[in-house]
Amino acid sequence: MPHTIPNKQVIYSKIPTTYPFPGEHLTLHESTIDLDTPLKEGEFLVKLLVLSVDPYMRARMRDPSIKSYFSALTLDKPLEGGTVSVVLRSNSEKFKEGAVVSGFGPFQEYAVVSKEAAGAYELRNGPKEIPLTNYLGNLGMPGMTAYVGLFKYGKPKKGETLYISAASGAVGQLVGQIGKILGLYVVGSAGSDDKVEYLKEIGFDEAFNYKTAGDLTKKLAETCPKGIDVYFENVGGKMLEAVLDNMNQFGRIVACGMISQYNRENPEGIHNLTLMVTKRLRMEGFIVSDSPEMKEDFIKDMSKWMLEGKIKYKETIAHGIKQTPQAMLDMLQGKNFGKQVVKVADL
Amino acid sequence: MPHTIPNKQVIYSKIPTTYPFPGEHLTLHESTIDLDTPLKEGEFLVKLLVLSVDPYMRARMRDPSIKSYFSALTLDKPLEGGTVSVVLRSNSEKFKEGAVVSGFGPFQEYAVVSKEAAGAYELRNGPKEIPLTNYLGNLGMPGMTAYVGLFKYGKPKKGETLYISAASGAVGQLVGQIGKILGLYVVGSAGSDDKVEYLKEIGFDEAFNYKTAGDLTKKLAETCPKGIDVYFENVGGKMLEAVLDNMNQFGRIVACGMISQYNRENPEGIHNLTLMVTKRLRMEGFIVSDSPEMKEDFIKDMSKWMLEGKIKYKETIAHGIKQTPQAMLDMLQGKNFGKQVVKVADL
Repeated sequence: MPHTIPNKQVIYSKIPTTYPFPGEHLTLHESTIDLDTPLKEGEFLVKLLVLSVDPYMRARMRDPSIKSYFSALTLDKPLEGGTVSVVLRSNSEKFKEGAVVSGFGPFQEYAVVSKEAAGAYELRNGPKEIPLTNYLGNLGMPGMTAYVGLFKYGKPKKGETLYISAASGAVGQLVGQIGKILGLYVVGSAGSDDKVEYLKEIGFDEAFNYKTAGDLTKKLAETCPKGIDVYFENVGGKMLEAVLDNMNQFGRIVACGMISQYNRENPEGIHNLTLMVTKRLRMEGFIVSDSPEMKEDFIKDMSKWMLEGKIKYKETIAHGIKQTPQAMLDMLQGKNFGKQVVKVADL
Repeated sequence: MPHTIPNKQVIYSKIPTTYPFPGEHLTLHESTIDLDTPLKEGEFLVKLLVLSVDPYMRARMRDPSIKSYFSALTLDKPLEGGTVSVVLRSNSEKFKEGAVVSGFGPFQEYAVVSKEAAGAYELRNGPKEIPLTNYLGNLGMPGMTAYVGLFKYGKPKKGETLYISAASGAVGQLVGQIGKILGLYVVGSAGSDDKVEYLKEIGFDEAFNYKTAGDLTKKLAETCPKGIDVYFENVGGKMLEAVLDNMNQFGRIVACGMISQYNRENPEGIHNLTLMVTKRLRMEGFIVSDSPEMKEDFIKDMSKWMLEGKIKYKETIAHGIKQTPQAMLDMLQGKNFGKQVVKVADL
């Protein structure tokens, strides 16, 4: 006898031109699922515990004719992203009943993971002491983004100055703390005085509120008196222009994201790129999934730093899958503080 | 008894805000020199044979309070740049009377090179069959710029597409021909139909006139049907935007110069830099003088290619030192065709 229960989903229902608004571009839908549905070989049924809302997801909400590294989302289908789940039933060798898994999947309370989709899942790979939500943050994609970006593309040398925009975000706060472990002079900016205070608490040498700082070029010259050697770029636009003015010769710009531009119909122009030549700068865009070879070192180092108390980690947790559209909007508007996640159910 | 003769000089007399105009920003001055002037140890007296006008020189004509990799020129002093000269008298071990030397020096008919300045000079280092003017071009700074830029920063792989803007210029024409030797698909743009014709003659797979091409993004999509893997950037501005639209994933932008921006009071903005992230592009500025370790290989390879007829090389030669200010303006306005030099005297 089928055991059918409600199964709430977050549906991508319309392409946004600026921000994705709850109830318009992202909507709640209640479908059903049969928990006793037969599982083919390699399949498993998961119950969603936590989901992640991240800036890159906005870039998938586009006209599918525009090609990019990540396919456009399909209208009227569930939003997809980082999740932590528990396996309820399994016909898989690797993912047994009761296992906690993190993976890339649909935002719905219950889902059957096919054999093909299982490749995007993995067993909890860090110490049990670390909270489950962290597997979407410092021990998940944002953490590895910080790690890969700083080491592989930033190539920092002890004593250099590292500047991070959107520094209190999921990635930025980790980049800064790893920078301090490496002996760098670390400066960050964020969009509220509370966030700036937090950056100083977790060890940033300098931090400022970009919204009240006035002239950004001058502010960077003040806070980075020796110039900037490595810029961890999360925002783009006017901030990038001000950074270019303050970069040292042979500086590196790690282009992780340009969130200030994603929700604009007309992106801002960068007017001082000739400095790339005269200062011999390198700017490099990267995506964490291109560097799977660094995964093992990342998990090992980050778990160690966490357990030693060298890395602090701040999250904004929304409660209930219904809050997902609002959590996405809040994150894109910078209202979150630290990594934004949504807790869907307890383990 | 002193042997004093006239000594014409090209003087930098006013900071330009757009183009440097002959008679206003660059002026002719006739001083004198005593050809029998005593030479201290290490000094030598040279007679100028050929001088070079290059885009980077415009960047030195600025307010000296603006710092950059290359110091600002000093007002009311001679312009400085690449030269080929013959040694008339010498008190130097290395630079003997009669030697042909290339070096970085003042634009005047005769000059005493001090012991300190001698480090910027070298003896003719390639085969005698190659014309002297070439030591300011394919066997000089522009040639090495092409070589270093393409190999060290472009890292091209056989079969990839290389696109070059300002492709008929001193550097661009060499980049394209080296690209063909390496087995790349080579596309270039230039500012006249004659220049485009020349690019096809020297082996470019495709070439177009950017002034009559209409929509540059579309034109690049047509001429680079497999996308662009390496962009040798000489111009900046709208061209760079169109290239970003057409770059392939993991493409490399070798930022050699951005000549379209040097003579503008208000530089153009680049609006699609978020593509740096989504396509994982690398953009790197470079200056040839940072790579002296490649000099020997460059001279060896380039001489070989020249003598084998694998590299053709076009110059625009102005005659007489008086033509220098006009030659500079012509070059900055794109009226030259190939490397612009000024022949001052015969050997």
